[in-house]
Amino acid sequence: MSKYVLEDFTEGRVFDLDPYEVTKEEIVEFAKEWDPQPFHLDEEAGKGSMLGGLSASGWHLCGMMMRMICDAYLLDSTSQGSGGVNYMDWKSPVRPGDRLTGTSTVVSSRASTKKPHLGIVTIRTEVANQRGEPAAVCEHLLLCLTRKGYNEGAAA
Amino acid sequence: MSKYVLEDFTEGRVFDLDPYEVTKEEIVEFAKEWDPQPFHLDEEAGKGSMLGGLSASGWHLCGMMMRMICDAYLLDSTSQGSGGVNYMDWKSPVRPGDRLTGTSTVVSSRASTKKPHLGIVTIRTEVANQRGEPAAVCEHLLLCLTRKGYNEGAAA
Repeated sequence: MSKYVLEDFTEGRVFDLDPYEVTKEEIVEFAKEWDPQPFHLDEEAGKGSMLGGLSASGWHLCGMMMRMICDAYLLDSTSQGSGGVNYMDWKSPVRPGDRLTGTSTVVSSRASTKKPHLGIVTIRTEVANQRGEPAAVCEHLLLCLTRKGYNEGAAA
Repeated sequence: MSKYVLEDFTEGRVFDLDPYEVTKEEIVEFAKEWDPQPFHLDEEAGKGSMLGGLSASGWHLCGMMMRMICDAYLLDSTSQGSGGVNYMDWKSPVRPGDRLTGTSTVVSSRASTKKPHLGIVTIRTEVANQRGEPAAVCEHLLLCLTRKGYNEGAAA
């Protein structure tokens, strides 16, 4: 099966992310486990906060974004993980019933200087809600194999 | 009940984070939902990857870090949420059985220019495993009330 390798992540290439529907149940479930601030748990507490209503944890939004990325291209790639995130901006509250869409755009890519079978791709992912309001803008790193590394069976 | 307000987040103040024990079950459960890359799901796939064994998703590590932050100080604060993350570095794999500890250090804080009852705190959180190896280093933002805003009953 052909997989995306470093050479496929050309500068400016755009990957569309499939829509993601947000439910109240998952907002509360995620928050209970990882970010139990009142405005992520309870409608009334949300209304009484600056967020103006029950809103997903920013880290939950990261999870949704990552799932969208996995389904769009990452699971079909030679991903070896990631060294991190250059920045993550949470732009507007994510609420029950929101329908998120987005894109990942390749900002840059290069071969690793230390490991020639490996590449480092910088990707900017933008996620917006059904009204076109930005929810998250994130620049993140991807480690993946070069074509040569993949063909030679480097760790995949 | 007294809560941490902007004026309590003085530059250089350090908050210790309580230990967090990582289990294989939660690594796999989180990955299934949010980041189903093979090396986050399966021991053998992890061994065959550059990570060298089953490893938690970086976003899962963010969740653990956020939970440690909530339990250490955030749930006792006047937090109004966050605008995002300046950077997040994933430094080494997080594996089943790891015991994470960490600190949050106040980098800077200031009152909002637009909303005088609100403050913006920049915090650097570092999480390490039981061998002292850094797992995550993150600089993140916190919106919280000033003492005056809290005493006057601004949205909390």
